[in-house]
Amino acid sequence: MLNEYKNCIESCYLCATACDNCAASCLEEENLEMMRECIKLDMQCANICRLAAQFMTQNSDSAQALCRLCAEVCQKCGEECGKHEHEHCQKCSRACHQCAEQCRKMAA
Amino acid sequence: MLNEYKNCIESCYLCATACDNCAASCLEEENLEMMRECIKLDMQCANICRLAAQFMTQNSDSAQALCRLCAEVCQKCGEECGKHEHEHCQKCSRACHQCAEQCRKMAA
Amino acid sequence: MLNEYKNCIESCYLCATACDNCAASCLEEENLEMMRECIKLDMQCANICRLAAQFMTQNSDSAQALCRLCAEVCQKCGEECGKHEHEHCQKCSRACHQCAEQCRKMAA
Amino acid sequence: MLNEYKNCIESCYLCATACDNCAASCLEEENLEMMRECIKLDMQCANICRLAAQFMTQNSDSAQALCRLCAEVCQKCGEECGKHEHEHCQKCSRACHQCAEQCRKMAA
Repeated sequence: MLNEYKNCIESCYLCATACDNCAASCLEEENLEMMRECIKLDMQCANICRLAAQFMTQNSDSAQALCRLCAEVCQKCGEECGKHEHEHCQKCSRACHQCAEQCRKMAA
Repeated sequence: MLNEYKNCIESCYLCATACDNCAASCLEEENLEMMRECIKLDMQCANICRLAAQFMTQNSDSAQALCRLCAEVCQKCGEECGKHEHEHCQKCSRACHQCAEQCRKMAA
Repeated sequence: MLNEYKNCIESCYLCATACDNCAASCLEEENLEMMRECIKLDMQCANICRLAAQFMTQNSDSAQALCRLCAEVCQKCGEECGKHEHEHCQKCSRACHQCAEQCRKMAA
Repeated sequence: MLNEYKNCIESCYLCATACDNCAASCLEEENLEMMRECIKLDMQCANICRLAAQFMTQNSDSAQALCRLCAEVCQKCGEECGKHEHEHCQKCSRACHQCAEQCRKMAA
């Protein structure tokens, strides 16, 4: 694993955890109607973050391209989560934006 | 890959597809309130089915134990989906029960 | 799930199976030295194919972009596997090229 | 996410990273012949750790059962990696044993 990937790998797993938690927590909220898009993006963001972490850790030739796409998914998910006041959504939004930033750096 | 695993691997991927589709489709339904448990189980069932397929394909020593657990998750997901009349839920329920049966055979 | 994605989802799971099988089979070959790159690409190709299948099934806004990247990984993996005469490598090469073609169509 | 799961989720992702890294690094070692089993177990251990993390984070009813199985896979992988002197193998062995212990606690 390249040293420069370390922070980004950690951000990816923190983001995956925040997204898995946000999806499961949204499904227990009262105002479920508003959470449709949030849950959908969480499911996809968690899984692409886990794959990006694998590609970086294995120093794949496609790691940078995957980070670029992962940043886009994180960005969308972070924006959607940021619209909701639940603590899990706000926490997820921060993790997504942090991960998007790290992934963009890696992809540059 | 062992020949006896072939049908079960195929069932696992069909089940993963049915679950991914059911989760995304549930999130667009009017009666979202009733779909909470269905969406949650779909998310988990899809991912454990994909892992079970990998373990069987690679003839892992833990493939049978994972199939046993996968059968339990599929069984629960199939029962939950079976409660709802949406076509995607009914289709997912059938795929889950079919996959549960194949996984139990593999685990035996 | 959009109907136009069906063939591509199926190709992705067939490719994931071929890659998982090729990686595990390569690890039992006599001429292991030559299989280094093949095993590495197989590991990554299997996992990105599974993710692409999820994104398409859930009609993600990022499905096309992920298919584009998946096609590149499949292309590389298919070329590497094609260099080796083992039946599992040849079979994997065909599955990779088939999946690359389908993914490129989806991404277009 | 339940608070008691936090340490175990973190151990799972650290273990996944150690396994991904160990697999890729083994594939560049001179004594590749001896690393066959290590690479195979790494591939499977990384993916089951990622799934266990998802199940715990989402407080799945099957999280404990998956942790029990994950502990077994980590235990095997940690023992195999422990046989080799490469730094990545030794590091992976420690991460696997640590994760196995945490998963056993969660499963108890």
